[in-house]
Amino acid sequence: MLGSTHGTLTMTSRSARVLACGERAGGGTVHGRADDTAVELDVSGRPLHAPVPDLDRFFRPEAVAVVGASDTEGRANTGITRQLLAWADRVGARVHPVHPSRREVFGLPCAPTVAALPEPVDVAVLLVADPLPVVEQLADTKTRFAVAFASGFAETGEEGAAAQTRLAEAAARSGVRLLGPNTNLNAFERFRDDLDGPAIALITQSGHQGRPLFALQELGIRLSHWAPTGNEADLETADFLSYFATLPEVGVVAAYLEGLKDGRGFLLAADRAARNGVPVVAVKVGRTRAGARTAASHTGKLTGADATVDAAMRQFGVIRVTGLDELQDTATLLARARPPQAEGVAVYAISGGTGAHFADLATAEGLSLPTLPARKQDELHQWIPEYLSVANPVDNGGHPVGDWRGRKIIDAILADPDIGVLICPITGPFPPMSDKLAHDLVAAAEETDKLVCVVWGSPVGTEDAYRHTLLGSSRVVTFRTFGNCVRAVRAYLDHHRFSRAYRSPFDEAPRTPSPSLRKARALLHPGRQLSEHAGKQLLRAYGIRVPREQLCTSAAGAVRAAAQVGYPVVMKASAPQLAHKSEYGLVRLGLTSASQVRDTYRELTEIARAEGIELEGVLVCQLVDPGVEMAVGITQDELFGPTVTVGLGGVLIEVLRDVAVRVPPFGEDQARAMLGELRGAALLHGVRGRPPADTDALVEVVLRVQRMALELAANGSGNGGGLAELDINPLVVLERGQGAVALDALAVCP
Amino acid sequence: MLGSTHGTLTMTSRSARVLACGERAGGGTVHGRADDTAVELDVSGRPLHAPVPDLDRFFRPEAVAVVGASDTEGRANTGITRQLLAWADRVGARVHPVHPSRREVFGLPCAPTVAALPEPVDVAVLLVADPLPVVEQLADTKTRFAVAFASGFAETGEEGAAAQTRLAEAAARSGVRLLGPNTNLNAFERFRDDLDGPAIALITQSGHQGRPLFALQELGIRLSHWAPTGNEADLETADFLSYFATLPEVGVVAAYLEGLKDGRGFLLAADRAARNGVPVVAVKVGRTRAGARTAASHTGKLTGADATVDAAMRQFGVIRVTGLDELQDTATLLARARPPQAEGVAVYAISGGTGAHFADLATAEGLSLPTLPARKQDELHQWIPEYLSVANPVDNGGHPVGDWRGRKIIDAILADPDIGVLICPITGPFPPMSDKLAHDLVAAAEETDKLVCVVWGSPVGTEDAYRHTLLGSSRVVTFRTFGNCVRAVRAYLDHHRFSRAYRSPFDEAPRTPSPSLRKARALLHPGRQLSEHAGKQLLRAYGIRVPREQLCTSAAGAVRAAAQVGYPVVMKASAPQLAHKSEYGLVRLGLTSASQVRDTYRELTEIARAEGIELEGVLVCQLVDPGVEMAVGITQDELFGPTVTVGLGGVLIEVLRDVAVRVPPFGEDQARAMLGELRGAALLHGVRGRPPADTDALVEVVLRVQRMALELAANGSGNGGGLAELDINPLVVLERGQGAVALDALAVCP
Repeated sequence: MLGSTHGTLTMTSRSARVLACGERAGGGTVHGRADDTAVELDVSGRPLHAPVPDLDRFFRPEAVAVVGASDTEGRANTGITRQLLAWADRVGARVHPVHPSRREVFGLPCAPTVAALPEPVDVAVLLVADPLPVVEQLADTKTRFAVAFASGFAETGEEGAAAQTRLAEAAARSGVRLLGPNTNLNAFERFRDDLDGPAIALITQSGHQGRPLFALQELGIRLSHWAPTGNEADLETADFLSYFATLPEVGVVAAYLEGLKDGRGFLLAADRAARNGVPVVAVKVGRTRAGARTAASHTGKLTGADATVDAAMRQFGVIRVTGLDELQDTATLLARARPPQAEGVAVYAISGGTGAHFADLATAEGLSLPTLPARKQDELHQWIPEYLSVANPVDNGGHPVGDWRGRKIIDAILADPDIGVLICPITGPFPPMSDKLAHDLVAAAEETDKLVCVVWGSPVGTEDAYRHTLLGSSRVVTFRTFGNCVRAVRAYLDHHRFSRAYRSPFDEAPRTPSPSLRKARALLHPGRQLSEHAGKQLLRAYGIRVPREQLCTSAAGAVRAAAQVGYPVVMKASAPQLAHKSEYGLVRLGLTSASQVRDTYRELTEIARAEGIELEGVLVCQLVDPGVEMAVGITQDELFGPTVTVGLGGVLIEVLRDVAVRVPPFGEDQARAMLGELRGAALLHGVRGRPPADTDALVEVVLRVQRMALELAANGSGNGGGLAELDINPLVVLERGQGAVALDALAVCP
Repeated sequence: MLGSTHGTLTMTSRSARVLACGERAGGGTVHGRADDTAVELDVSGRPLHAPVPDLDRFFRPEAVAVVGASDTEGRANTGITRQLLAWADRVGARVHPVHPSRREVFGLPCAPTVAALPEPVDVAVLLVADPLPVVEQLADTKTRFAVAFASGFAETGEEGAAAQTRLAEAAARSGVRLLGPNTNLNAFERFRDDLDGPAIALITQSGHQGRPLFALQELGIRLSHWAPTGNEADLETADFLSYFATLPEVGVVAAYLEGLKDGRGFLLAADRAARNGVPVVAVKVGRTRAGARTAASHTGKLTGADATVDAAMRQFGVIRVTGLDELQDTATLLARARPPQAEGVAVYAISGGTGAHFADLATAEGLSLPTLPARKQDELHQWIPEYLSVANPVDNGGHPVGDWRGRKIIDAILADPDIGVLICPITGPFPPMSDKLAHDLVAAAEETDKLVCVVWGSPVGTEDAYRHTLLGSSRVVTFRTFGNCVRAVRAYLDHHRFSRAYRSPFDEAPRTPSPSLRKARALLHPGRQLSEHAGKQLLRAYGIRVPREQLCTSAAGAVRAAAQVGYPVVMKASAPQLAHKSEYGLVRLGLTSASQVRDTYRELTEIARAEGIELEGVLVCQLVDPGVEMAVGITQDELFGPTVTVGLGGVLIEVLRDVAVRVPPFGEDQARAMLGELRGAALLHGVRGRPPADTDALVEVVLRVQRMALELAANGSGNGGGLAELDINPLVVLERGQGAVALDALAVCP
């Protein structure tokens, strides 16, 4: 079931890609950083590059058609037409009303069709209930983009989804890139052009949800673009993300996502942002089933298994936040802050309590508050009474901020080479102190490349120091809560650490099948769960160690096998479609003699006969030394295709669900990081005097399983065969240097 | 080490209690709900009741002395004197300046001492650097309360702590309840008296940190009291908490805590609030070591092991939050909201995206969003277009809010019997819609007992609908972030569920020792870790099952014992102070014959001799059936004394730290809840076809261990002996109906 669903999805995503290429070939220009070669595929048949669509003329059109324009008071289209005219007036664009029966709208001449306009337009805004015929008419008009407002498509169910597909196909035929349907004119709002510095570029799948981010401009925070992607019939989040990641004025991309149209496409866009060092912050709905369900009904896109979405985002450095408030605060900080000169955070407060509370939350979030060196503390004590602690947090007791000492303290802290971030939480405004403090912080921030953050804790928010002094600065980042501040600073330091170390996994992803594939393909049986023996041969084909074992079909053969394998042996019934062997009593450990092996052979075959299980034989296996029991597997994700998991093995994997997941392609660093995410990771380090386990061997198994996942991708991507699921459990990880052995393997073919 | 530290602490806390009683006996009146009998102690020697101090005259004094009053411009004391005079003027209190050399201050006659004033005062505010002599002079002045501003006490180190103890003792001798030192006049700020409804009463250990809560009044939220407790030399958080919990005007107690002076005292105060149904919300610093360290240096109080603080708070219904913003929002909601009529939450939004996002976060927080019944959905579709989902979240698409339909939709949702809470997230203000929506919500909230919450998501916060309409309502609770809203609503529903079910564990706590204590005491050896055999006898004394076993001192004796115990047997070396038996090879399982037993006896004694271990003998023990291995123990907490833990047994308890903790006294409900908190709880339910474990027996062991913890409290509370630590690991929990058996016990006497 999973396999076929996935297959369909991948087909869809691939055709979407093809459309994208078509558009490019059909005359669209490609932005500088895109590669012009044909799209290269990885061994799973999915693209390794995504072209960057040229959206310059979408965001800065010179001529715009408004199909369905109106100036009749009280009509919704009138408001939209008026908004567009006002926008065009500001930016110097030309607006052409289009209406089948009107002669003019708001005094402008009106044409019956886009083709009848006096000039080709960059963007056609479609305010009509059924955009399909208009999109069809756009063929040969040289219109580059269309924006479809109408709702009633994929968000309403199957019928709407079919209509949406027809609309996308019509757009492709007409050579038009389509935004929507179910979108609006957020891209043509009144952006402030008086603000400096790197900007936030915004992508939202809901207009209302983007509104608070747009409103940040009222607080002096610069926004450059807003892409309200709606149903994403054609242009999707990934297109805007990769485009924004190439613009010099964009300091951060902020996104509100309900679903993703195409997992690989999103990852390729995130990869472009990561390569370019552009941070991406996103709210992604779908943490819970309820959220996922509602989001799906709202946008008709896939929400994906949340843990996988989470892992995929982390792999490509996308910072996931939960609330729109965090999205605002984190995006603001990332847009404004320069790369950190040091990872240390200094907390500076006018109250010991405030410093203690902030330090507690900051440390809990993993921030490092280095103790300031004795010499620095002595320096600070020139201005701060001796009885106050200046170790970090620096508590000034209040009074020094009111005079010339205030600025000296701030500069002294910022001068410390281990400090990259200065945070000043101002819990309660007290104008004689806090106004001066705000002023000093703003002035100091102008003269440093280090990050200066303020938390303005007053719930009122109309105070002068906040509204004018702090929000008037384009350097200071001002928060309203401790929590959002510590999380944003953490995201900032994480982003730069990630960015410095980033190497695109797409560069290293396998393009061609390994020699293992041929061996593996012979073992696969479509629609079937392989026998343990076949599953282990599959592992062996990919260089994963399994115990010495032989498949025997007679008691005498079993005795011979045991002698070759070496006593003591393990015996197990082996058959396709066989699960829960242990519960049937079909696994026997520690057999030490020929007579035991002979008896056991008979017992196992009798149980199988009684249970109606058709055995392919009995496995006689080497007894492997004890080690740490882990589990490594492949599962299929609706959105991202095959994923690789690793967790504690045995019963615990079920009880504790202590599992880490990654979306291929990923490198050794990520495979190693997976182990660190496990709560039971300490088991691998050796507990109660046990030696450390061979984690290198475990990492190697994870990477080989990834190779299997890609080469045997369940969609049967032209390589034939296919593997829907794999579960190696237990994988016994022996002591360091001794390797890892797969004791059992469950493989399901789609 | 733990034991002695703990002993000292408990002594301190007990003397604090004695002082409190002394004050009461010395003429203080006791508030109505306090009991007048002598304080009853539980079997651990700790009080079962705490008197409620009468603080009416502290918060509403008729006459106040200001010692160190000043009207010299530029002096800090002048500002404070002026503030107090302004306050007295508003509330009609009389202020008497006191200064050794001044004749008058601000035109008021000034006396050289409090005793020389024309009338006794309720409160003496001490603005002097050394308050000790003034506190001593207050004896026989009938002064009820003193507020000491001076800093430089326990927050600065040992010397300061000693000075603070002298100050507390002087206050007790003078019959004065002391607030501070290191505090201020927050209790005498300008409280708004024009606001209605239940109020927030505030306790903060830092003035600056209380400021945002005080500022809530500017947003129309009522505050009745503010207790800035400072160093808590005498009056402490617990005093204010229990006092506030008896006041009819108080709807919620909000607290910012850095440390607690006395764990038991805090729990008794929280218990009073729980009995009275008064919710308590608290920030408690000390989640991290850094936070705890800074907090300790700031207030000189104990921060306690954070997980234990967390558990203790939950046991008594104290809602712990992390940030001051959450403290504000949660307190506001709890003060305003009436008890829920149903647990269902309805989300109502003007955008499907907003509804989906909010529903996602709400569900992740454990809120229930019931699907509205078909009939209700039909009703809503009278006003909301068919293609929008009204199942819950209710998405109105925007337009219906603008006219007469808006109010009808709100009322229809509120009328649903499964809905107790209506939440309307307004992400972006759009005055034609959001002004009307805000107005309708405020009007609807006036006419319902159900809770109506709004999230005003705009970061600007100066919009009219927010500032005037929403904040002008004393019924609607308005949030600024989704996250704070879902957490506060969750806290509200949790509080009422807790409150309905609450039975005070102090009512059931044992007053007198059980017969087990006499047997147990004979086994304890101060300063020593007991042998496994003695530890198990201790368990047996408290009715906890251990394997059949005999302590043998000869090989022949071991063989006889094995015959009586029954083969196969387990043999273990037993000695006091013996840890890591397994690593020495001093544990042998599954011995099946007399000769094996004889040989093993010799081997064990030889190993012990070689390792220099003086054995008390060799244990010959019954081999117990396999089951789920758990661990149950007692540890000592600096703040709360003995605590009881339960977790997964064996190696896993170390690797996963999957442990639940409770502070005695607690009932069976809490013991059962501990099991539910374990990540590995599913192991007890039976996995992979195993039968469910005997959780009743496990709960019974936890309760018996609690009894041990109380009776053998490490402080040696008059019951003699004492037990610092106990670790039963593994406790094998057999299948349901078969009980639980302690296979090993490590007991440490203080």
